[in-house]
Amino acid sequence: MAEYIRRAHYHETDRMGIIHHANYVKWMEEARIAYLDGIGISYKKMEEAGVVSPVTGISVEYLKPVFFDDEIGITVTVGKYTGVVLELAYTFRNLTTDEISSTAVSKHCFLSNGRIVSLKRALPGVHETLLSQMPAQPER
Amino acid sequence: MAEYIRRAHYHETDRMGIIHHANYVKWMEEARIAYLDGIGISYKKMEEAGVVSPVTGISVEYLKPVFFDDEIGITVTVGKYTGVVLELAYTFRNLTTDEISSTAVSKHCFLSNGRIVSLKRALPGVHETLLSQMPAQPER
Amino acid sequence: MAEYIRRAHYHETDRMGIIHHANYVKWMEEARIAYLDGIGISYKKMEEAGVVSPVTGISVEYLKPVFFDDEIGITVTVGKYTGVVLELAYTFRNLTTDEISSTAVSKHCFLSNGRIVSLKRALPGVHETLLSQMPAQPER
Amino acid sequence: MAEYIRRAHYHETDRMGIIHHANYVKWMEEARIAYLDGIGISYKKMEEAGVVSPVTGISVEYLKPVFFDDEIGITVTVGKYTGVVLELAYTFRNLTTDEISSTAVSKHCFLSNGRIVSLKRALPGVHETLLSQMPAQPER
Repeated sequence: MAEYIRRAHYHETDRMGIIHHANYVKWMEEARIAYLDGIGISYKKMEEAGVVSPVTGISVEYLKPVFFDDEIGITVTVGKYTGVVLELAYTFRNLTTDEISSTAVSKHCFLSNGRIVSLKRALPGVHETLLSQMPAQPER
Repeated sequence: MAEYIRRAHYHETDRMGIIHHANYVKWMEEARIAYLDGIGISYKKMEEAGVVSPVTGISVEYLKPVFFDDEIGITVTVGKYTGVVLELAYTFRNLTTDEISSTAVSKHCFLSNGRIVSLKRALPGVHETLLSQMPAQPER
Repeated sequence: MAEYIRRAHYHETDRMGIIHHANYVKWMEEARIAYLDGIGISYKKMEEAGVVSPVTGISVEYLKPVFFDDEIGITVTVGKYTGVVLELAYTFRNLTTDEISSTAVSKHCFLSNGRIVSLKRALPGVHETLLSQMPAQPER
Repeated sequence: MAEYIRRAHYHETDRMGIIHHANYVKWMEEARIAYLDGIGISYKKMEEAGVVSPVTGISVEYLKPVFFDDEIGITVTVGKYTGVVLELAYTFRNLTTDEISSTAVSKHCFLSNGRIVSLKRALPGVHETLLSQMPAQPER
C-alpha cells in the first residue's frame, strides 16, 4: 500500500500558523490520483476516454495540526465500490512528528457526456482493477 | 437569516469545467465569518482577544455542479453549540439556477494559548450570542 | 472608473500573518472580469463564442501588506490594446487603511481553436469596446 | 544547479484546460524554498530566528501552457543580492514536453520585528551563503 508523500508548503499555511484546512481536500485529490496511478489507472487517460469522476461528497477529521515544511504521507484505500459509486478512505500521517494528523473519506460517481455511467460497461478494465482493490470481506 | 452571496470565480474552475470541490471549503469559511459578523461576533477581534477556532471536521455533499460566474448564496445555521464545541450547517443555493447545489457541516473547537477552552469562560459575550442562535428545540 | 471591491479572506492569509502574495494574481483576474463586465464585455460569453484570452505575462509590485478582513478596491485600466495584444494596469487600494497596497500589470492574447486571433476579426464588437477604453493619448 | 521537480495537479487546472497562471507564483515559492534548502538555508529556521522575507515584486512570462500531470522542473538562480534586497530568477522547464514553459523573477526584502534589516548584520551566515551564489561577474 503505497503512500503519497509531499511537503506542506508555505503558501498553504494561514495566519493561525498551520496548514489551512481547505488544502487537505487538494491533498486528497493528489493522493487519489497517485493511488490510482499506482494500481494502473491513469486518471488522465480515463478523462481522455470520455469518463470523468466528480466528487459527490467529502468528509475530513482534523486530528492534529500540520505545520510548514512537515512531510505528510497519505495512504488511500477503497472503502466501497459498486461500479457506479466509489468511496475512498484516506489516512494522513505526519512523517515529521510520526502522528496521524487526519482521516478522510471521498465519494465519487462516474460521468460520460454528463450522464452517470457504470464503469463496468464504460471502462471494464478500470472496473476490474477497482474490484480487485476491495477489502477481502465486503464491509459497509 | 442572512445569506452570504458571492460569484464563482474563473480561478476556482477546473478542467472539468466546474468549480473545483476544494473551493467549497473556502466558501464555507467566508460564509461562516460573514455569518458571525452578522450576529455581532468579529472573528478578527476574537483572534485579537487570544482565542482561535480551528476546524476539527468538515463534510460536504456536492449535489449539483457550480459553473464560472454563477452567483451562490450560502446560509449558515448553528447545529450544535456546547461552549466547547460548535457545529455549523451550510446550505449552498445557486442563485443563477435556483437550485440547492451543496449542503455542508463544519465542526470547531476553541483554543487559547494552544489549549482547548470553554467560550463561556474565555469570551462570555460571544458565548451568549452563540447560545441565542441555537435552534429552539435542542436537536441532534 | 468602477472599482472592484472585495474583502481579504482568512483562507488567503499565510503564517506571516498577511495575505499571501499569490492571491493578488487571482484578485487581478476577478477585477479584470468585473471590469470587462462593466464595459459590456462578458468574459463568459466570449469563451462561449470560442475565444479564450490566456495570460501571457504578469507583474506585481507589493507596496504594503494586506491583512485579513481588509477591504480592497481594485481599479483596472487599459494600458495597451492592439487587437492582438491587451495589456491591463491594476491599482490595489486598501480601503481599510486608505493606502495603495499594490500595482500590477497583466498581458493577454486571444486564441480561437488554439490559434492566436485578432479580436478585430473574431469579435468586432469586443474590439470596438476595448479600443474605446484606450487612453486619450497613445502611450507606451 | 538542482531543479525542483513537481507534477501539475488536477486542482491547479482551470476551465481553459490548462494550469491556472496564479499557481506559478506558488510554484516559484516552492522552488525558492527548495533552492535555499539546497544551499543550506532553511527558510523555516530563518523565520524562527526572527527574520521573514516578504515578496516585494514578481513577474512571470507565460511561454507555453502546462497541462494536468505534466512534470515541471524549476531552476532558481540569484540575479541580484545586496544584503538588503534579493532578486531570484526562475526557469520553468516542462519535462513532459521538453520545453521552457515560463521564466520568472521575484524580489524580496528582509524584515525583523516588522522593520527592514540587512542580512549581513541579522544573519551573517545566510548573508555569506547568498553572496557565494552571486554570478561570477556582477551583472544587471
